[in-house]
Amino acid sequence: MKKIITISRQFGACGTTIGRAVAEKLSYEFYNKAVVLNAQKDSNIDISDLVEFDEKVPMDFSFGESIFEFTNKKLSDRLFAAQSDVIKKMGEKGKCVIVGRNSNYILREFDDVLNVFIYANEEFRLAHMNEMHPEYTGENMLKRLKQVDKIREKYCKYYTKQEFTDCRNYDICIDVGSIGIDNAVELLYGLAVK
Amino acid sequence: MKKIITISRQFGACGTTIGRAVAEKLSYEFYNKAVVLNAQKDSNIDISDLVEFDEKVPMDFSFGESIFEFTNKKLSDRLFAAQSDVIKKMGEKGKCVIVGRNSNYILREFDDVLNVFIYANEEFRLAHMNEMHPEYTGENMLKRLKQVDKIREKYCKYYTKQEFTDCRNYDICIDVGSIGIDNAVELLYGLAVK
Repeated sequence: MKKIITISRQFGACGTTIGRAVAEKLSYEFYNKAVVLNAQKDSNIDISDLVEFDEKVPMDFSFGESIFEFTNKKLSDRLFAAQSDVIKKMGEKGKCVIVGRNSNYILREFDDVLNVFIYANEEFRLAHMNEMHPEYTGENMLKRLKQVDKIREKYCKYYTKQEFTDCRNYDICIDVGSIGIDNAVELLYGLAVK
Repeated sequence: MKKIITISRQFGACGTTIGRAVAEKLSYEFYNKAVVLNAQKDSNIDISDLVEFDEKVPMDFSFGESIFEFTNKKLSDRLFAAQSDVIKKMGEKGKCVIVGRNSNYILREFDDVLNVFIYANEEFRLAHMNEMHPEYTGENMLKRLKQVDKIREKYCKYYTKQEFTDCRNYDICIDVGSIGIDNAVELLYGLAVK
């Protein structure tokens, strides 16, 4: 029986939908964005900075040399440390599904963890995003998709020294476009209860 | 229902064992090294060259500039082309499990294919290799493991322009050390018959 399931995922690949469904089937806690807010409670990061920063990450997270970027990097490091503490506390409690935030890496010393990666080709992800956000045009959405992909890859590489899409960082990787959401949920539930 | 299952795998990760078991459960044909020999029948490559080359690949496959390497590269290109033809013929027949030889890439235009990647950490793979080849010392085995990993990554990159361990090249990737051989077989069978 797995105590913790971490779900890393590409933008638009339904990782949250899958994670929530698996958590429900297992009667486990489900964590995603809430982690950020919880992190704030235990750290000295100002909530308004944090929310603003979290929004800005996908646009400006380039780790360059300018003072602006330096400030962002410092804030990002503090945020990562604060989130790591919160995720470890969640891990200690157990019985949870955690989506995103490099939780597979943060919990790498924990036992009974199932680390999952959910991905799909651009076509599948665009179709899903268009359904969720009909206000965007297709072109803007594709641009946004590529941007977020880049950011997540960079963020992962920076904090974990690992490639985001390298399967060796996970116990199982599922192309949800090919396998399907329901099959993915069923499959992960089956592995979690073994 | 999937007509073709391709299994790419790290050296020592039991990809062949898993592939054979899945083929048996599905009553599908199972192909691995035999592909090389079949390829020879339809090409003008001399079988003795081929066997010698196939043995040498893991040692000398460096694509450098020397005449020796140039000859190897030429032979390798012919071998890859011949194998691709054979694998496509197998794909056309369908109802088969094909292990290795970048068959996921070669059959990328085919329908009803399930592309699988099987991997595991060095510890698991070494334990498995030691069981199969007790004549090797642990140190030699680890050296060989790292060598073959490098060769497969290089070979994949050269012929497909893809990273061998990037999950986006496959429909599902399984860490067999974590998931287990029997669970992997059951899981793949379940996906194949859907």
